[in-house]
Amino acid sequence: MTISTRLTELLGIEHPVILAPMAAVSGGALAAAVSQAGGLGLIGGGYGDPDWIDAQYAAAGNARIGAGFITWSLAQRPDALDRVLRRSPVAVMLSFGDPTPFATTVRNAGAKLICQVQTIEDARVAAAAGADVIVAQGTEAGGHGGTRTTMSLVPPVVDAVAPIPVAAAGGIADGRGLAAALSLGAAGALLGTRFYATVEALGHPAAKSRLVASGGADTVRTSVFDVVRELAWPGQWTGRALRNAFVRRWAGREDELRADLQGAIGAFREAVRTDNFDEAAIMAGEGLDLIGAIEPAAAVLDRLVMDAEDTLRRTAATCR
Amino acid sequence: MTISTRLTELLGIEHPVILAPMAAVSGGALAAAVSQAGGLGLIGGGYGDPDWIDAQYAAAGNARIGAGFITWSLAQRPDALDRVLRRSPVAVMLSFGDPTPFATTVRNAGAKLICQVQTIEDARVAAAAGADVIVAQGTEAGGHGGTRTTMSLVPPVVDAVAPIPVAAAGGIADGRGLAAALSLGAAGALLGTRFYATVEALGHPAAKSRLVASGGADTVRTSVFDVVRELAWPGQWTGRALRNAFVRRWAGREDELRADLQGAIGAFREAVRTDNFDEAAIMAGEGLDLIGAIEPAAAVLDRLVMDAEDTLRRTAATCR
Repeated sequence: MTISTRLTELLGIEHPVILAPMAAVSGGALAAAVSQAGGLGLIGGGYGDPDWIDAQYAAAGNARIGAGFITWSLAQRPDALDRVLRRSPVAVMLSFGDPTPFATTVRNAGAKLICQVQTIEDARVAAAAGADVIVAQGTEAGGHGGTRTTMSLVPPVVDAVAPIPVAAAGGIADGRGLAAALSLGAAGALLGTRFYATVEALGHPAAKSRLVASGGADTVRTSVFDVVRELAWPGQWTGRALRNAFVRRWAGREDELRADLQGAIGAFREAVRTDNFDEAAIMAGEGLDLIGAIEPAAAVLDRLVMDAEDTLRRTAATCR
Repeated sequence: MTISTRLTELLGIEHPVILAPMAAVSGGALAAAVSQAGGLGLIGGGYGDPDWIDAQYAAAGNARIGAGFITWSLAQRPDALDRVLRRSPVAVMLSFGDPTPFATTVRNAGAKLICQVQTIEDARVAAAAGADVIVAQGTEAGGHGGTRTTMSLVPPVVDAVAPIPVAAAGGIADGRGLAAALSLGAAGALLGTRFYATVEALGHPAAKSRLVASGGADTVRTSVFDVVRELAWPGQWTGRALRNAFVRRWAGREDELRADLQGAIGAFREAVRTDNFDEAAIMAGEGLDLIGAIEPAAAVLDRLVMDAEDTLRRTAATCR
């Protein structure tokens, strides 16, 4: 049994579930595991380090996967896209910036173009650029994102870009969330944090343990990690992360952090080097309340789809 | 045809839809219209003006309705609750504060106790207080609310308070949203902004026109209207309103507003008196993108339920 939608048809996958290309988390092993379990795994190309991407493609073996990039960063080093396209990815996902300059290159290489957006306006831009799939990402998502919520953003995006299939992202971590995404008019869902909490995800076991121990209320949208990492994120996107000691110290005091940046950077890098997650960032979304264990990605995906099917049948039975 | 859930059974209503008790908007005519169309109408008791509530109960005729209050404000004038309970309301909804001191009074009067919460922790408090229904309200909701989103808040609240039925609130404005609420595990939905944009809602036609002309991105959570109205809202709750000239002038400058309060209050009251909505508040939620016209409440509710049924059947058919 599975759930068949325009997304599964278009991408040639069994289940309407896409792995979010989380930078430094969605490596080749996780992407391969998600694809082999029937979803679509995307390597987290992030800021576009070609050697890291090569290594992760090697780790994925011959699994049928794709990759994702941060668009404004890719614009500064477009060679990373070329390296990925030579791998014949199923799809390339672009987020956070205008996809138009890359759209023809991606599609001419035979890859599907997935564009993630945070506003209705950007959904229209992505549709005009030729996106094959549009991901409508709510503010509850982990990592970078905007201010609109999944519940209120997905339906108007679906209406604005029809008939392009939409995947919902943000706050989805179980079968109920996937079923809700389909109810909102999406043809599937993109999940990040739920797959971070898997055996195959990159990341330190202590970071994953914190995901299991935390709830959505322990996360916050903030720019402090972008400031200390000297990343030039445009102001409309902030990163949702666990509220640790570093966040508590600097959130709301970003100007002071910038003024004392050289001192802070040294301490932050040392925290990253020593896996000190009171200081180093753990990006995570509000779906954390639904995550109870670190499991193999296939077990997560199997249960997700089975529970979504149960939910869809149960709710349809309320119509009398 | 309709959608039958534990919420419809418990409240003795036809459709699993509750009118949010919007202060100064959900008057007797709107509450009666929603109840007569098969939902549950709640008068917006707000800060607890007993004479206003009496007038609205008169406007509702003998419709089977209830009322809602702002809990922290009700604690300062509990006589308003007694006035409502003498009307034999179907239900009393309490939001924003500890419902425990009022729970026995409400239930002993034969009314169902509906408690609206914005966190999992407060859901547990409401359950322990004896709530018959718990409304899990996401940050996308219009008017006052918290920070968690509907998509990520509803499932863990459902799990935390089972078997108490949960209604989802925030960002729900069409049948897809109602279907999504049921998918998330809720037994129904509570809608505010969608019913504000109806013929029967209180409020100036110019305010309602702005609802139709605006989108969810035109709303923002802010305390500026609480400051200028000298309302002692606890800090965890802000009001989602249209971003008008007053918001643009004062948001982020609340301390300056407080310092110049007497001057600002006079101008603000004049704006309210003259229906100048560049300055006066229009509370509204992120669901605005889905609202295209001012309609009778019954037309809204009928279409909402019909579309939700279509959605539930369509999504169930994706299981193969």
